[in-house]
Amino acid sequence: MRIISVDERTIPLGSKTKNAAISFQAMTASAVVIEIETSRGRFKGLGFSSYGRYGHGGLLRERFIPRLTNITDKISGETSVQLMAQVWDVLMTDEKEGGHGERSGAVGVLETALWDALAKSEDLPLWALLERDAGHSDDSQLPPGKTAIYASGGHYRSSSSDAAELADEAKRGLEAGYGWFKLKVGGASQFIDLSRIESAVKAAGDSSLIAVDANCAYGGENGTAQLIELDQIGLRWIEEPVNPLDYPGLADCCQSLKTPIATGENIFSQADSKNLLHYGELRPGLDNLQMDFVLAYGLTEYLRIIKDAEAFGWSRRDFLPHAGHQVALHAAAGLGLGGHETAVVPGGPFSSVSDDTTVENGIANLGDTPGTGIENKPTLFKLFANLL
Amino acid sequence: MRIISVDERTIPLGSKTKNAAISFQAMTASAVVIEIETSRGRFKGLGFSSYGRYGHGGLLRERFIPRLTNITDKISGETSVQLMAQVWDVLMTDEKEGGHGERSGAVGVLETALWDALAKSEDLPLWALLERDAGHSDDSQLPPGKTAIYASGGHYRSSSSDAAELADEAKRGLEAGYGWFKLKVGGASQFIDLSRIESAVKAAGDSSLIAVDANCAYGGENGTAQLIELDQIGLRWIEEPVNPLDYPGLADCCQSLKTPIATGENIFSQADSKNLLHYGELRPGLDNLQMDFVLAYGLTEYLRIIKDAEAFGWSRRDFLPHAGHQVALHAAAGLGLGGHETAVVPGGPFSSVSDDTTVENGIANLGDTPGTGIENKPTLFKLFANLL
Repeated sequence: MRIISVDERTIPLGSKTKNAAISFQAMTASAVVIEIETSRGRFKGLGFSSYGRYGHGGLLRERFIPRLTNITDKISGETSVQLMAQVWDVLMTDEKEGGHGERSGAVGVLETALWDALAKSEDLPLWALLERDAGHSDDSQLPPGKTAIYASGGHYRSSSSDAAELADEAKRGLEAGYGWFKLKVGGASQFIDLSRIESAVKAAGDSSLIAVDANCAYGGENGTAQLIELDQIGLRWIEEPVNPLDYPGLADCCQSLKTPIATGENIFSQADSKNLLHYGELRPGLDNLQMDFVLAYGLTEYLRIIKDAEAFGWSRRDFLPHAGHQVALHAAAGLGLGGHETAVVPGGPFSSVSDDTTVENGIANLGDTPGTGIENKPTLFKLFANLL
Repeated sequence: MRIISVDERTIPLGSKTKNAAISFQAMTASAVVIEIETSRGRFKGLGFSSYGRYGHGGLLRERFIPRLTNITDKISGETSVQLMAQVWDVLMTDEKEGGHGERSGAVGVLETALWDALAKSEDLPLWALLERDAGHSDDSQLPPGKTAIYASGGHYRSSSSDAAELADEAKRGLEAGYGWFKLKVGGASQFIDLSRIESAVKAAGDSSLIAVDANCAYGGENGTAQLIELDQIGLRWIEEPVNPLDYPGLADCCQSLKTPIATGENIFSQADSKNLLHYGELRPGLDNLQMDFVLAYGLTEYLRIIKDAEAFGWSRRDFLPHAGHQVALHAAAGLGLGGHETAVVPGGPFSSVSDDTTVENGIANLGDTPGTGIENKPTLFKLFANLL
């Protein structure tokens, strides 16, 4: 494989929603296109940032794109995994250990664009390339090419009909075939949050079809009392109850709550993931690991994170990547992960799935289009208009 | 205080040196100038990135400078510490928890430039402002305005006279009045490293005057054996023996080595620092904490980190900030920290100290020039030529 060219654009993602911690009005993402050449011809790989951490334009231009375009030799590997591990080392040249933020997203968006290009060069959907070269889960309940899928939304709105809109959103998500629905908590009073949850549970018909995302709102003593109330509801999971790096706080949650915990979307490296698993007292088979590989140095690092977790007694089914990007859908279906998140905000780049994917009874059935299928997701693909 | 303007430039720091992990040829830093207005007039604050993590031009322009320049109201606070805590909250608006890298340096360089401006507006050197508003150590052996100081160098060079050059460097450092000398290890065979250390110890006349910096080279079993050899020498400290986030590995070092450990330069937030102190089994009063506040969200976050550490039984004397920037010299002398690092590579922005500071018998005696004194350090000040 040779790198022919790399282009990037920063895309505004301005949204009026907010979670317990931040507003998303100024949010951006990076779209990148990498052209590669292999023995089969030239292929363009598309990559798109994950959500919530801003685009990486500056870092891409300052450090990471030049490292890729400076590769003049051919890069080879027996498998795509081996080849990408070499690319990864080039991307991380002269980068010190620690400090895993921002650059992990710059590397992630480039790395996943290269996976898109590589899959296209093999004429395979990415899920099939990953299944072939990285292996599908031993204990998956679904065959390669399929994955569980859920709908995520329920952000706070300023409108007074928030709870009604939320119920409607949950209902639409489940009716569209998504397996369960996730909403935001921790950004309002416990009274309002409980009434929002109640609306959603009522709309869904079962509390196990509702997960809640606290965006770290429940640190401290008051938080513990609120969590204990939430624990009575029988929710699918409580996501990010405390600061992502508050391992003692997380351990407390795991000791005191029977509801599954989900966390990991703000853990951006193998080193941080090891600490989370080592110190967080998360429960394999019950809790959910949401590391977002587009924010966390890409699939190469994600495979290392999964391997570490397996050594700690976890299964790939315990992994459900954050954010709902198209490449995560392929990783879930190819590696046999626990499922895929999609945003229900209509029309956004993280909503829904590519056109060749069907969603029914909580299962996404991926098509055979080569690559990650960004071209088949019009709301996402249109953001690449000036890059192709 | 009002923000009048913020300007930044990326400065190449290309150097032929390398450590155990990376080369510094493509290294950059950010220089920033912030003009503020207070009741006493207008003042320009200068900030300069720390070393080893690249400049932050992209992040500064994309997110952090706009947040500062968008402040149209006056920012007030009873003390500089309270005022800066408000600025900090503005800088971190809509930034999610976790992922502490890169942005922590962008915030750090802006935040420290503002401290320079604030100190100038009070007609005080920064050390005196910090002493007044954040307090000097209770148990410091030196009065405010003075700090222990050491020389850091001993990078690997390609020349065959490496060990002789190293001995010369150590000797020059100690003769110039620096209290001890630090060199790099872990980037060559143990045989070569031991002979380099031997040269330096011989030049210094005492092994306790020599510290070594491993830049994370001693992870794994082979590393442990090498560390046990180093532990026999009676070195001042062994710095960053393992990956900065490898808390179990660090705990092993602290249990098995009698030599003091130094670490923390790649720990960039209060949350990460808490984990280091909670899980690393570092020994208060023996080991050294090197958090580099210019890389770690600035002095506001550093004061939080120090407070946490004090609650864990540490003293401010156990803190010795990484890198040798002028603002760290003032923090050490104002807060009563354990000392200040300076680079011995002549002429660089992290070498030596401002002209109004004297260095004698291992002690730096800071002058009274208002601010951080960057204007009095010609090798650093010239890098601001196009910004002023």
